[in-house]
Amino acid sequence: MNRSDIEGAAERFSTDGRGFVRRTPLWKLPGRALGIECAQVWLKLEQLQVAGSFKARGMYNRLLANRIPASGVIVASGGNAGIATAAAARALGVPCEVFVPTVSSAAKQARLRELGAQVVVTGAVYAEALEACLARQRETGALMTHAYDQPEVVAGAGTLAREIEEQGGEAPDSVLVSVGGGGLIAGVAAWFEDRSRVIALEPELAPTLYRAREAGAPVDVAVSGIAADSLGAKRVGAIAWEVAQRHVREALLLPDAAIRSAQLALWQEFKLAVEPAAALGLAALQSRAYVPQGDEIVALVLCGANLDAATLT
Amino acid sequence: MNRSDIEGAAERFSTDGRGFVRRTPLWKLPGRALGIECAQVWLKLEQLQVAGSFKARGMYNRLLANRIPASGVIVASGGNAGIATAAAARALGVPCEVFVPTVSSAAKQARLRELGAQVVVTGAVYAEALEACLARQRETGALMTHAYDQPEVVAGAGTLAREIEEQGGEAPDSVLVSVGGGGLIAGVAAWFEDRSRVIALEPELAPTLYRAREAGAPVDVAVSGIAADSLGAKRVGAIAWEVAQRHVREALLLPDAAIRSAQLALWQEFKLAVEPAAALGLAALQSRAYVPQGDEIVALVLCGANLDAATLT
Repeated sequence: MNRSDIEGAAERFSTDGRGFVRRTPLWKLPGRALGIECAQVWLKLEQLQVAGSFKARGMYNRLLANRIPASGVIVASGGNAGIATAAAARALGVPCEVFVPTVSSAAKQARLRELGAQVVVTGAVYAEALEACLARQRETGALMTHAYDQPEVVAGAGTLAREIEEQGGEAPDSVLVSVGGGGLIAGVAAWFEDRSRVIALEPELAPTLYRAREAGAPVDVAVSGIAADSLGAKRVGAIAWEVAQRHVREALLLPDAAIRSAQLALWQEFKLAVEPAAALGLAALQSRAYVPQGDEIVALVLCGANLDAATLT
Repeated sequence: MNRSDIEGAAERFSTDGRGFVRRTPLWKLPGRALGIECAQVWLKLEQLQVAGSFKARGMYNRLLANRIPASGVIVASGGNAGIATAAAARALGVPCEVFVPTVSSAAKQARLRELGAQVVVTGAVYAEALEACLARQRETGALMTHAYDQPEVVAGAGTLAREIEEQGGEAPDSVLVSVGGGGLIAGVAAWFEDRSRVIALEPELAPTLYRAREAGAPVDVAVSGIAADSLGAKRVGAIAWEVAQRHVREALLLPDAAIRSAQLALWQEFKLAVEPAAALGLAALQSRAYVPQGDEIVALVLCGANLDAATLT
C-alpha cells in the first residue's frame, strides 16, 4: 500500500464520467476559531461525501478496479460500508446484496433498500450475517467488498488525504484520524508517510489499534459505546496494521463524554452535523489529549454523517 | 451601495485581529451531482458562518464601522439578526440588548442569553418589540443594528459575494439568493453588478421583492409559511430596493412544498443541515422555476442553519 496505489484510485475517480465520488470541501480555520492554540485547524468535510461517509471512496474504487460479475456486488454490513457499497453499485448499475444481522435498525435497512440493494436480514450478530454473506458469495461469485481490509478500499480512502494536500497547498503538520478497522488511517498514512504526523484516535470503548500496539499484533477487543456503530470493528485490519507500524505516530484513546461534547460543539458552534466517529479529532483537541504546537497546522477528518439528526438536540 | 463599500467591509474583517467572521467554504459540484443539467453548481456554505447565518457579516461590519457608546448595542429581533448582533457584541466585549416579542420561542431567548445578551421580552408582535427597542435606544444612545436596511449591514453581507468570486476564481453565471428584507441580495447584487445574473427567490407566502416589483415600489405584504422566521420581513428594505432595481434580473416565487423538499434533499443527500430559507436555491432548480443553460455555473447561497435539527427527520 503506497502513494502510487492512491494515485491510481484518484485517476479512476477523475476519469470516471459519472462523478460519483465528491471532492469534499477543506475548511481552513484559524485555531482560535475553535478555541485551540495553534495556527490553523483544517476541517476536511468528508461527512458531505456521497452516501454520507468516506467509505464511498473505497467501495467505489474496489468496484471500478475489478470486473463485476453478472451476480453483482455483495457485502456484509449494516453501517456505512453497506450504504456506500449499495450507492456505488447503483451508480454503476449493477446488482447489490447486503447482509445485515437482525439487530440492525429498520431505518438502516430502509436506507439500503432505497439505494436499490437486496437486503438479507440474517443472524443475531454481525459475525453470523458475515458467515451467511460469505456462503452466498461462494454460490454466486459476486464481487465482495470489505469495510476496511482490501487494498482497493484502503487506496480509495487514501484519495481523501491526497485531496487535503492538494486543497491545502501543502501537507498539514499533523492529521487526526478516527480508527475502527483502520481503512481510513491506512489510506491517510500511506499518502502522507512521514510528511505529516498521523495520529490515530479511538474511543476508549473501541480500541482496536491501541490494543494492537500494546500487544505487538492485532488482537480482538470488546467494542461498545457512542461510536460503536461505525468504529466498532473487533480487530484492526491487516493492511492498516502494516501501514500503521510504519507511518502512524501515536494512538490515543478518548472517553465517550469528550466525543459527545465535541459532536455537540460541531453542531452548535459550526452547524456541522456529524456522527460521533467524526468528532474524535475535535474531542482530542478540546480535551487536550492531543496538544498541538503554537505554529502547527492540524487537519481533522470529519469522516461521516450517517446519524439521526434528532440526536443533535 | 457599491463595490467599494464591500471592499471596505472585507478590509475591516481581514484586519480585525479577532477573526470573528469566518471565511466559509465554497463547494463546487458538477450539476449532475444535484441532478441539475448545468455545468456546475456552487454551494456557498454560509450556514457555517459564526452565529449560524450570513447575518454575522453585516452586524459585525456595522459594529466595527461605528463608535460604540458605553451603553453598547441594541437590536429588535428574535431571529438570526438578533443572534448575530449578540455574538458580534460579545466578540467585541460590548453590552448588547435584544428586544423580542412574547411570541418568540424560549429556545431562541435562551440562545441569546447564552451569547451574553440582555434579553427584553416585550410586546405581542414584532412591531411592538421594535417600538420598545427604539424608545430604549433614544434613552441610552446605544448603537442600533437593523436586520437588513443599513448600509454597513448590506456591505457586510456583500463580502459573501466577494468571497464567492475569489474562491470560485471567477464570477458565476448566475447567483440565486433568498430574499426577506433584502439585505443579502442587495450586498450580492452590489458586488456582482451585471457580471452575474442575480436572481431573487422568495416563498410565495413572503413575497416582499416580488410585490414591490409588481407595484413599482416597496409595499407591505402578509408573511407566513415555512421560512417566515427568517424571510418574514413585511417590506423590502430601501437599500435593497434601490440596488435590486439596478442589478437583480428576476424575482421568482416558490411554494413551501418545494422549499421543504429541497431542505430535506440537502440533508438526506448532502448532509447539509440548513434552515428552510437556505433551501430556496435548490428548490428553484429542482422545481425548474429557474432553468439554467447547459454550460452555466449557478451559485446558491446556503444562508443559514438556525434550525432545530429534529425538524430534519
